Amino acid sequence: MSLGKFVSFEGTEGVGKTTAINGLCERLQAQGIEYVRTREPGGSPFAEQLRELLLDTRTQINDDTELLLMFAARSDHLAQVIMPALSAGKWVICDRFIDSTVAYQGYGRGFGNADMLHKIEALIAGFVPRLPDITLWLDLPVAEGMQRAGKRSVADRFEQQQLDFFDRVYQGFEAQQQAQPQRIQRIDAQGEVEQVADRIWQSVSQQL
Amino acid sequence: MSLGKFVSFEGTEGVGKTTAINGLCERLQAQGIEYVRTREPGGSPFAEQLRELLLDTRTQINDDTELLLMFAARSDHLAQVIMPALSAGKWVICDRFIDSTVAYQGYGRGFGNADMLHKIEALIAGFVPRLPDITLWLDLPVAEGMQRAGKRSVADRFEQQQLDFFDRVYQGFEAQQQAQPQRIQRIDAQGEVEQVADRIWQSVSQQL
Repeated sequence: MSLGKFVSFEGTEGVGKTTAINGLCERLQAQGIEYVRTREPGGSPFAEQLRELLLDTRTQINDDTELLLMFAARSDHLAQVIMPALSAGKWVICDRFIDSTVAYQGYGRGFGNADMLHKIEALIAGFVPRLPDITLWLDLPVAEGMQRAGKRSVADRFEQQQLDFFDRVYQGFEAQQQAQPQRIQRIDAQGEVEQVADRIWQSVSQQL
Repeated sequence: MSLGKFVSFEGTEGVGKTTAINGLCERLQAQGIEYVRTREPGGSPFAEQLRELLLDTRTQINDDTELLLMFAARSDHLAQVIMPALSAGKWVICDRFIDSTVAYQGYGRGFGNADMLHKIEALIAGFVPRLPDITLWLDLPVAEGMQRAGKRSVADRFEQQQLDFFDRVYQGFEAQQQAQPQRIQRIDAQGEVEQVADRIWQSVSQQL
């Protein structure tokens, strides 16, 4: 039995992650590949409890606390969902993973300062036993994504942040992609849904 | 205005921390020293929410998740309670701090293995901006403490653990004390309440 592949999707708000994941899952199903679809923060019952705390607009916590909670949730998610699925030969399709932490906490909130990035790297090294086999970074200009996201209903705590925050987050994804071009593949997220799905499938099917 | 002192109390179950802290607080009050009394895990509203999750006997989480939650709670506690009090010139008297993490998670659950201890050290280095000025380790034979603790009512998740677990925790405190004899002072916790209070005051009053 071959081991499952671990695929994560990344990107700023409104780039179309949900639609893109739907498209990939349909194609995997058509290929007869078993998969588990999950997300971060959250993805396991205990991590979802922490997600509620993290996204609650009433929660006022400092950057270190937020970072540690993210990794606590991730640790549970890995142990309860991701690692068992991969061991059982299933693929794992995850909406956001470590690169969102680097982009949002490291670049967005942390302004890309070396101290914050170093803390995140240390937490990844110590508490993330398995990185994705492939990460699809959906690349769309920030303003266009914000416009798409604006069409949706209630904004959560992260979505309420300013535009310059999202510009920094975008720079975070870009820096990560440049640092790890083998794992992180840039996907042009402009154009029709079917076009984007084709681009994603082209990247993913190399893993088959 | 002089800065406040940071004092933590440590020890296995039933060593008499609460009574000892009561005694120290009375003497500080008699000296006209302002102090904030607090505890871990918890100590701030958000950290107390995490404490409830951690001590809930229904919570089934792995060691890494527990460790990260402990440090998330600690980070909030430091930012919201400990650092502001010390900056305001108050003393902080804390029931358990980093040494309990080393003893319980590192030695008790982690069996003192190098990997777990290294993770804890890295978290302390990255996320604990201030160590206690003095730590009072109340030293009592484990069996005697268990007997004392048994007199109290409902056992929480930590107290339900086996005796060999507490033996390892004791070894953890002992190892910490030997590694950092300047900060961590061993207090003989046998004998009458007043005797133990005198021993503690002798150590603490050197900080005045």
